[in-house]
Amino acid sequence: MGGTGAEGRGLAARLAAAEVPVVVGSRTMERAREAAEKIQASAGVAVEAATNEEIIQRCDRIFLAVPLEGAVDLILGHGDRFRPGTVLIDLTVPLAFTGGVPTIKELPEGSAAEHLKARLSPAVGLAAALKTVPAHVLGHPELPLDCDEFVCGDSAESRAAAMELLGKIPALRLLDVGGLEAARTLERMTLLAIVLNKRYKVRTARFRVAGL
Amino acid sequence: MGGTGAEGRGLAARLAAAEVPVVVGSRTMERAREAAEKIQASAGVAVEAATNEEIIQRCDRIFLAVPLEGAVDLILGHGDRFRPGTVLIDLTVPLAFTGGVPTIKELPEGSAAEHLKARLSPAVGLAAALKTVPAHVLGHPELPLDCDEFVCGDSAESRAAAMELLGKIPALRLLDVGGLEAARTLERMTLLAIVLNKRYKVRTARFRVAGL
Repeated sequence: MGGTGAEGRGLAARLAAAEVPVVVGSRTMERAREAAEKIQASAGVAVEAATNEEIIQRCDRIFLAVPLEGAVDLILGHGDRFRPGTVLIDLTVPLAFTGGVPTIKELPEGSAAEHLKARLSPAVGLAAALKTVPAHVLGHPELPLDCDEFVCGDSAESRAAAMELLGKIPALRLLDVGGLEAARTLERMTLLAIVLNKRYKVRTARFRVAGL
Repeated sequence: MGGTGAEGRGLAARLAAAEVPVVVGSRTMERAREAAEKIQASAGVAVEAATNEEIIQRCDRIFLAVPLEGAVDLILGHGDRFRPGTVLIDLTVPLAFTGGVPTIKELPEGSAAEHLKARLSPAVGLAAALKTVPAHVLGHPELPLDCDEFVCGDSAESRAAAMELLGKIPALRLLDVGGLEAARTLERMTLLAIVLNKRYKVRTARFRVAGL
């Protein structure tokens, strides 16, 4: 788990509550420990803390619950030191706010997930998930997710790895939407949810697929 | 109503069943009449038939339930002959199938809706709606829509016009998602629904927004 913000902590707490062994990571041990303590205090579940460096050596399922720039740094900074068979699970959305108006940063690869993939060793798998879950809901582990989330990835194996882990979280249905190019849609759907949140004055807009 | 295909007929039947006076249009009167007869035979509701030429002279709410190319032709072919205050309601999605794999055609304006807007007289309003509703469901008026649909448009008035008409259809919640640029997301969501349909072997995948 990379990411000590509210979303990362919320995800860590949900996974830990589902009895997944979780290590929260940050660039510094101090920030990782602070995050672990906050998770213990708010959600009452214990998680380990470690530096990103150590997480990359120890863990083979790593959530990128950080801003896109942080995910790029993490990937570029650790080059080929990932363990064989590692799958990264990308939660990033390339949002920008221009005068308070949310937009999506246009990336040459088409999406943040594909932007990360282009910088990643081919030995490491990449899936994208939980991109459309509202930060407000994910960050409050006492709120059930109560939605569908879309999983795409660079291979069926990467998607299966993400779905196996996230499948342990209650009240969440995971839908496999194929290759990473689906992230172009998913990242825009986050923007759509933010537009709906602003327009309808909520912080909880999220998606369900009917007819499946 | 421009569009005599199954989707256009399904929409016309739903509106007519909700007591909206509907005229189905086509380039030729013969095809328009055929469509009106099919609607009468399958859904048991009567609708008028007319050429697109006549529809543009008579109607001030016109659904573009045609392929994108047809919508472009309709707009370019009729220039500034639209009635003052007309609002076009765009249902098009710029899908392409490459070796059986569905993709979205990249348009310089970002979306089909914005592509149409760029070709339209400023005196005519444009909204986009029902882009993500499955063709299979829309085309069978006996199936309730049972979903949320997103409405965007070039002005609050255009969106309100679309929402007022479509709001008469039962089992459909309309969500205002702002300016036409939202169509970039909506058109991709149609692609996502098609991917889900193929992967989960249904023809009915569509969206609901939770937490609103």
